[in-house]
Amino acid sequence: MNYKTVFYTLGMALYAEAVCLLLPMICAFCYSEDVWWCFLVCSALAAALGFIFTFKKPERKNIYAKEGFVIVSFTWILMSIVGCIPFMLSGAIKRFVPALFEIVSGFTTTGASVFKTLNGVPKSVLFWRSFSHWIGGMGVLVLLVSILPLSGGSNMHLLKAESTGPSVSKLVPRVKSSSTILYGIYIFITVALSVTLLIFGLDLFEALTITFGTVGTGGFGVFDTSIGGYSDKVQWAVTVGMILCGIDFSVYYLILMGKIKVALKSEEVRVYLGVIAVAVIVITVNCLGQFTSLYESFKHASIQVSSIITTTGFSSVDFNFWPQLSKSVLLALMVIGACAGSTGGGAKVSRIIILFKTLIKEIKVAAHPKSTHKVMMNGRALEHETVRAVNVYMVSYIAIVIFSVLFVSMDNFDFTTTFSSVLATLNNIGPGLSVVGPTGNFGGFSDFSLLVLIFDMLAGRLEIFPMLILFSKYTWKK
Amino acid sequence: MNYKTVFYTLGMALYAEAVCLLLPMICAFCYSEDVWWCFLVCSALAAALGFIFTFKKPERKNIYAKEGFVIVSFTWILMSIVGCIPFMLSGAIKRFVPALFEIVSGFTTTGASVFKTLNGVPKSVLFWRSFSHWIGGMGVLVLLVSILPLSGGSNMHLLKAESTGPSVSKLVPRVKSSSTILYGIYIFITVALSVTLLIFGLDLFEALTITFGTVGTGGFGVFDTSIGGYSDKVQWAVTVGMILCGIDFSVYYLILMGKIKVALKSEEVRVYLGVIAVAVIVITVNCLGQFTSLYESFKHASIQVSSIITTTGFSSVDFNFWPQLSKSVLLALMVIGACAGSTGGGAKVSRIIILFKTLIKEIKVAAHPKSTHKVMMNGRALEHETVRAVNVYMVSYIAIVIFSVLFVSMDNFDFTTTFSSVLATLNNIGPGLSVVGPTGNFGGFSDFSLLVLIFDMLAGRLEIFPMLILFSKYTWKK
Repeated sequence: MNYKTVFYTLGMALYAEAVCLLLPMICAFCYSEDVWWCFLVCSALAAALGFIFTFKKPERKNIYAKEGFVIVSFTWILMSIVGCIPFMLSGAIKRFVPALFEIVSGFTTTGASVFKTLNGVPKSVLFWRSFSHWIGGMGVLVLLVSILPLSGGSNMHLLKAESTGPSVSKLVPRVKSSSTILYGIYIFITVALSVTLLIFGLDLFEALTITFGTVGTGGFGVFDTSIGGYSDKVQWAVTVGMILCGIDFSVYYLILMGKIKVALKSEEVRVYLGVIAVAVIVITVNCLGQFTSLYESFKHASIQVSSIITTTGFSSVDFNFWPQLSKSVLLALMVIGACAGSTGGGAKVSRIIILFKTLIKEIKVAAHPKSTHKVMMNGRALEHETVRAVNVYMVSYIAIVIFSVLFVSMDNFDFTTTFSSVLATLNNIGPGLSVVGPTGNFGGFSDFSLLVLIFDMLAGRLEIFPMLILFSKYTWKK
Repeated sequence: MNYKTVFYTLGMALYAEAVCLLLPMICAFCYSEDVWWCFLVCSALAAALGFIFTFKKPERKNIYAKEGFVIVSFTWILMSIVGCIPFMLSGAIKRFVPALFEIVSGFTTTGASVFKTLNGVPKSVLFWRSFSHWIGGMGVLVLLVSILPLSGGSNMHLLKAESTGPSVSKLVPRVKSSSTILYGIYIFITVALSVTLLIFGLDLFEALTITFGTVGTGGFGVFDTSIGGYSDKVQWAVTVGMILCGIDFSVYYLILMGKIKVALKSEEVRVYLGVIAVAVIVITVNCLGQFTSLYESFKHASIQVSSIITTTGFSSVDFNFWPQLSKSVLLALMVIGACAGSTGGGAKVSRIIILFKTLIKEIKVAAHPKSTHKVMMNGRALEHETVRAVNVYMVSYIAIVIFSVLFVSMDNFDFTTTFSSVLATLNNIGPGLSVVGPTGNFGGFSDFSLLVLIFDMLAGRLEIFPMLILFSKYTWKK
């Protein structure tokens, strides 16, 4: 283990967080809130820690797979521990574990909250909460790779460990340039959506926070009604924004390069849009009785489906009261998740496609043992390594679900609450069903359960392996 | 596809069923019930169909993998369609789909019932219902292979498709002898348990039916209270019986051969007994407040844990009222299931072991990409083929769970009912939670949902592949 590089990169990430913490401070000044000092103190602390960690420059800057995983996990854990301090200093959340839960929920773009109500919470605290979605959406290490001459050619391992999906495709030969392009597209969508929301009548604070929640597919709102209180225009803008941010960002790069035909051929995006369409139709019909008109039913179905499949977690109504079929469809969408290479969570559409194709292949092989079949994707045969990784991902996913449900069961909530709270955090959605439904919150869980769910959120965002590897003695052996 | 052999084997299985149907007829005579003719008519029908199917002897008796799967699925489906006729003729269940559900639940050793109450149901009908567990427990094709000169050396494919677990080990070089040994052990345990129950004071009818439900790990009782009304001695005998029948039968063969050391080294059996011990301790402590004494809590925990992990489904109390932790433990046990090569259902302990070992291996490989590790089991490296098959099994398992939950959701029961009914049928347990809990039944579901759950029971018992392969066009191509 190259500890020096690990510490150095951690330090750089803390510097970045120190800068980020100045934004909510500015927000506090704008609204003359007296909690501005909380962010300043926290920012200074992050900078000080960053200074200590980067004091000794590493001679060897090489990062191997193991270091990549460890750096990513530690960065996310440390940034969260520092990032939750403003919640406690400002008095918005008094205890450490719930505060940590809230910021991990922010960074991992989960959007699950321990707040019973957002009334009375300072605007700058809400801003920091929503901004954490934006930081976590694309990932702080992807940002570092794009702006810093971090570690030569081997920082692909960092990108691999932090990006979403079963395999990372470099857009251009240089990793640094790839990251810059990704962030460019991310910032462009952010600006475009903010401006749209401003035009549709929101003030700058609301436009920015809702945009952060949308493009990071996070889901923190600034009102107890989530996005239920906004006009139809705003709700549709957010819906389109969520769907766009659930698409593989490399597809946008292809479009930018004029390779529109190649972009349109992406199997993952096609299936993703197809699943959205089918789910919206099923729920619209199934919920007709709940709404006054077909349009209303269609609107809420569209918002909810986009919100859940992209794992954002915004809600316009309390879907706890929908028929079971609609609720089961939403639970299935939770597991599927968004596209690989997007800011969304879940198992990712491409993993589901690969699993289904593997299954069909195996049935063919069972019928004709001597025949040979390959799993194809976008017209090319998939590497055996990718297929195996997807299988392993699913196995660890199930193992985490089972153990988490067992642990959280100790709080003695009903099964729907227990099960959906695990699914909602592991898939980075936010709201679940029953007690943790759209109008509920995670404040009722014990500290132990919150820690389990914090682990689940991090495992979900970092796609399990970087978190599991911390527990292996092989990681720490010379 | 060698259709002639498929039909011939189907016909033989129907002959076997015709013989089996005479037993409940004798039972009807003993209790002077006037429904004896129902069994006679049905037996005659089975014999007639068997005669037609075996009319033309196949020249080629070879069975390949594909035929093996198809024969097994068709045998189970056809035997169920014939086997449900007595329920309808006797008027115990009036409609076809619920009757089919009941007998499939019997043959697959699920033990889920559509009966609201067993009061007033003729004893011979109850006998047939329980006896179907015994027939399905070891499998009718295993029986055929053991007594008939069916198809030369290649009937290993039949055994493979009907036996439980990720890989079938031949006990002795000849497949026919292996099957005979298995049935020998099965009959020995059946007789031993029946005699024990007779000594403990049950009458012959009760001793036989409870034994069938226990050794087949089925779970149909003859009273609405399942085994809750029996004395402690009987309940403990049943508990021991269930645990013994959840163990790989080849372990007993090893013991018979004097290879006790080898038998004791079986990783699967050790983990199986370990899981039972841990689960019993957790539930005993968790449920202390529910019972009058530590002994009572321990007794009910032992019964319920053994009943669920072996997927039998007997109940001594209504665990719907237990704390959520105990209920979640039971749900986890449902998924794990019994040992491979036993009469129990579920994913099987050995599959879970293989999955965990694969996971640990992959974490090692992620930390040290250049190292090589093998998945070991009982001291030997597992074949790549077995590991892959286990992965594919899990994927199809999850796919079936998701689709079944979506379909059954249309009946608009609560999530706990919907989800646990799918788990309880796919894993061949019987009772689930909430509406389908120990004191509930499956009678409230629509025909469509019952058909979905029938598919799940068959897929669970035949370990998914034989059922999925029916839907592949490759199976039916020349």
